[in-house]
Amino acid sequence: MKGTERIMLGHGSGGLLMHELLEDEIVAALGRGSIQPDDAAVLPLDGGEVVFTTDSFVVDPIFFPGGDIGSLSVCGTVNDLAVMGAKPLYLSVALILEEGLPIEDLRRVLRSMRRTADEAGVRIVTGDTKVVPHGSADKLFVTTTGIGLRLKGLAPSSSRIRPGDALIASGSLGEHGLAVMLRREGVEFGAEIVSDVASVFPIVESLKPFGDAIHAIRDPTRGGIASTLNEFASASGCTIEIDEQAIPLRDDVRGACEIFGFDPLHVASEGKLVLAVAPGNATEVLCTLRSVPLGSNASIIGTVTDRRTPRVILRTAVGGRRILEMLAGEQLPRIC
Amino acid sequence: MKGTERIMLGHGSGGLLMHELLEDEIVAALGRGSIQPDDAAVLPLDGGEVVFTTDSFVVDPIFFPGGDIGSLSVCGTVNDLAVMGAKPLYLSVALILEEGLPIEDLRRVLRSMRRTADEAGVRIVTGDTKVVPHGSADKLFVTTTGIGLRLKGLAPSSSRIRPGDALIASGSLGEHGLAVMLRREGVEFGAEIVSDVASVFPIVESLKPFGDAIHAIRDPTRGGIASTLNEFASASGCTIEIDEQAIPLRDDVRGACEIFGFDPLHVASEGKLVLAVAPGNATEVLCTLRSVPLGSNASIIGTVTDRRTPRVILRTAVGGRRILEMLAGEQLPRIC
Repeated sequence: MKGTERIMLGHGSGGLLMHELLEDEIVAALGRGSIQPDDAAVLPLDGGEVVFTTDSFVVDPIFFPGGDIGSLSVCGTVNDLAVMGAKPLYLSVALILEEGLPIEDLRRVLRSMRRTADEAGVRIVTGDTKVVPHGSADKLFVTTTGIGLRLKGLAPSSSRIRPGDALIASGSLGEHGLAVMLRREGVEFGAEIVSDVASVFPIVESLKPFGDAIHAIRDPTRGGIASTLNEFASASGCTIEIDEQAIPLRDDVRGACEIFGFDPLHVASEGKLVLAVAPGNATEVLCTLRSVPLGSNASIIGTVTDRRTPRVILRTAVGGRRILEMLAGEQLPRIC
Repeated sequence: MKGTERIMLGHGSGGLLMHELLEDEIVAALGRGSIQPDDAAVLPLDGGEVVFTTDSFVVDPIFFPGGDIGSLSVCGTVNDLAVMGAKPLYLSVALILEEGLPIEDLRRVLRSMRRTADEAGVRIVTGDTKVVPHGSADKLFVTTTGIGLRLKGLAPSSSRIRPGDALIASGSLGEHGLAVMLRREGVEFGAEIVSDVASVFPIVESLKPFGDAIHAIRDPTRGGIASTLNEFASASGCTIEIDEQAIPLRDDVRGACEIFGFDPLHVASEGKLVLAVAPGNATEVLCTLRSVPLGSNASIIGTVTDRRTPRVILRTAVGGRRILEMLAGEQLPRIC
């Protein structure tokens, strides 16, 4: 882009500067489909159940170990489709840029977005760009919206959870939230903790043969697995019992959480799943998960016990039992 | 919502406060469909051409004469579907809230969003809410994404514009941009100029009988009609000639633009259309437009002359001719 290496208000004007920004940066990075001359995309969708989801991303910092706001905003929305049992097909990308943002930062984010979309097999087909004055936003916010088609046979929904179901985590938890927090606070902590941000669609696809036996799938992002499990309990009206020792946690995550006073069960992951599976299929699902790259640390972490009270009970390492609450206030702002 | 009348960081946590915000405010205002327990919507779409579009809204101030960021964000996306010849069906709503935003302001915006969606016949089916610390955003940003189905027979696209086409404006221009700017600057200017923000789908629907004769439709938002016409010229490779005196402008808009030094042709409308129509149908289209409520001031403003140079020529009131350029930098930031 000529004449400027920082975002200016005029880049959001609807005029020449904006057209330059679109052509030189956004189309160059995301591909022609992301900017329709007609401001919307026309999509072929061959029947089936269409799934539709949106997420804004305000992560701070925009670059962190293992990812950035670009890969996060693509994976976050791809994953919201995947947990519905849908194959992600199309994405829209809406950018809010702060005046003064280095163009090179925008480029890095867009490149990351494109690479992540290509890897996830999803097409960025339409978009929008706004610029606000310096101080009216923090660098760069991204809103991605996704359209997917439900895989035949899969219809996961937290309302389908029932007593007897096994709860399975697809891998170790909390890495994303900690990676972002440690980078934001400038804390050095032994070996760097790296975000787990990734598309979980390959995991979901591997579960297609189990069809109806997959009762619910969710990605434990904001609020961590504690929020996910409480949402499962509340949507199904069931009591869920979790074995604390069975929850996969990396030692560095456990250690950092102890030092900084976080409960790792409240810390976000961005490439993991929690599943509720019919009891007869639990072992087979576990083995399938362990056979895909992102699921090698999958574990059965608990069961749905009964329909008396919607709540989550944690069996602790020392044999105690406590109620695992949802996070009440804010523990880690701006981690997605 | 209990205990607080301002947005707190914890409202974006994924925890209890966030669930309270979602239930007490967002679901209460937008309806259950806007918050899926499963974080995405499953949509029935009966074949046809699916149209998909997204827009972020960062308007400042969030309340202005004639509308607010809520009505604007619904109409803006509904209109991007309408100009593709599509009936708007579903919307997603992603909110970025600044810590400290009065909950009452959020309520007002959500109510306005719901009312506007109901009037436009579009359903808000999924959403997302993020909260950033005070000073990291300005009050409230909204990203709406829309899905629509193309009306059979209509396939407007700026690439279908050809020599001979008549250019038609559906009504007077520039009111939205001026209404927002005057309110932001706190300028009193005779009778208040009111935003024209509205769903233009009823206008598009009235044109369905003309089918293929409707070559292109666009809403002249950011950058005003000057940007729209230049985009038409560039997408079609044609020269467009516009008669300055034929462009519908209210006297108060013309007057305010003179005083503040704006070119009204660069100022945004949010409930108007510019159309390119086959020459044989121009008069009939004009009469149809004038028969619908939002089109009573519709006018033929020019023609597509030839395919020599893609540019827009303005025939001025005194008989001169000048090239109408796209806005180069920024004239009115944050008007949508």
